[in-house]
Amino acid sequence: MTIFVDMDEVIADAYHAHIDIYNQEYNAEIKVDECYGKEFWQCVPEAHQQSIKDHTRRDGFFQNLKIIPDSQEVLEALSKKHDVYIASAAMEFPQSLREKSDWLDEFFPFIPWQNRILCGNKHVLKGDVLIDDRSKNLGPFEGRSIMFTSPHNTQVTLFERADTWRDIADKLL
Amino acid sequence: MTIFVDMDEVIADAYHAHIDIYNQEYNAEIKVDECYGKEFWQCVPEAHQQSIKDHTRRDGFFQNLKIIPDSQEVLEALSKKHDVYIASAAMEFPQSLREKSDWLDEFFPFIPWQNRILCGNKHVLKGDVLIDDRSKNLGPFEGRSIMFTSPHNTQVTLFERADTWRDIADKLL
Repeated sequence: MTIFVDMDEVIADAYHAHIDIYNQEYNAEIKVDECYGKEFWQCVPEAHQQSIKDHTRRDGFFQNLKIIPDSQEVLEALSKKHDVYIASAAMEFPQSLREKSDWLDEFFPFIPWQNRILCGNKHVLKGDVLIDDRSKNLGPFEGRSIMFTSPHNTQVTLFERADTWRDIADKLL
Repeated sequence: MTIFVDMDEVIADAYHAHIDIYNQEYNAEIKVDECYGKEFWQCVPEAHQQSIKDHTRRDGFFQNLKIIPDSQEVLEALSKKHDVYIASAAMEFPQSLREKSDWLDEFFPFIPWQNRILCGNKHVLKGDVLIDDRSKNLGPFEGRSIMFTSPHNTQVTLFERADTWRDIADKLL
């Protein structure tokens, strides 16, 4: 079975990084539970929104993301049974490409370079399962689309859902 | 129609870059017509072969590649009629990722980031045409596989072949 796994919001915690950077730089105290159903930039005053959107163009943003809990253990087990690919829509951010490769080397070394994909969209991927946090990626996928819960997608009901990597283990292991 | 186009040896001239670097650094005069049917490292004394293989890990190697003749004009025309993706197996060389993105920005700006793929292998790409110089990529592809002629693949007879981008224009435009 061929399984595609997204990076941001699935194995790498970009959402909390946005919150942490914003709270620190604007001396704010936004909590994640104020953000359900919204992109993080929608949770801040309009005058600050562009600065949030620019986080993903900063050197080091992707290099420093924390790991989503249990993703390492479950992915390592999955990769022993299945053909697991990391598939990240990263091409919009050229400075992220090397950082994402290095981050995978550091935290997911059991996913070899042969099974890593940095792309613009995911419409052309052929496989059995896609685990992703975005409807735009899950919708066109011809296989089983599993939405991984992130604060921004809590209101979406179109897809099979996994809230945690334990859920993924129950579904696929 | 979805068309995937490889980078090295199809739109970017890596083979001649290998020759030029080697000839300069070893004071040699190897000509491309001595290389037909061989990887370039197979054309040099054994003691020099590793240095050829290491070219692709050098900073600037991919940034400085010349453009394969007519690839810009034909690809721009193709991209107006079809869904054209650049698909390069680049993940083995992390330092190449940004260079390849920048090179495409410079020479193929009409292929937007949405249509660029940097991957490890191409087994999971779903589309109609793959233009590539490598049997390992063309073989597993489920659509129309077109081998773009490079010095190293002149002996391969398994695939439909294009010697130049004018050939591609004749076939696909």
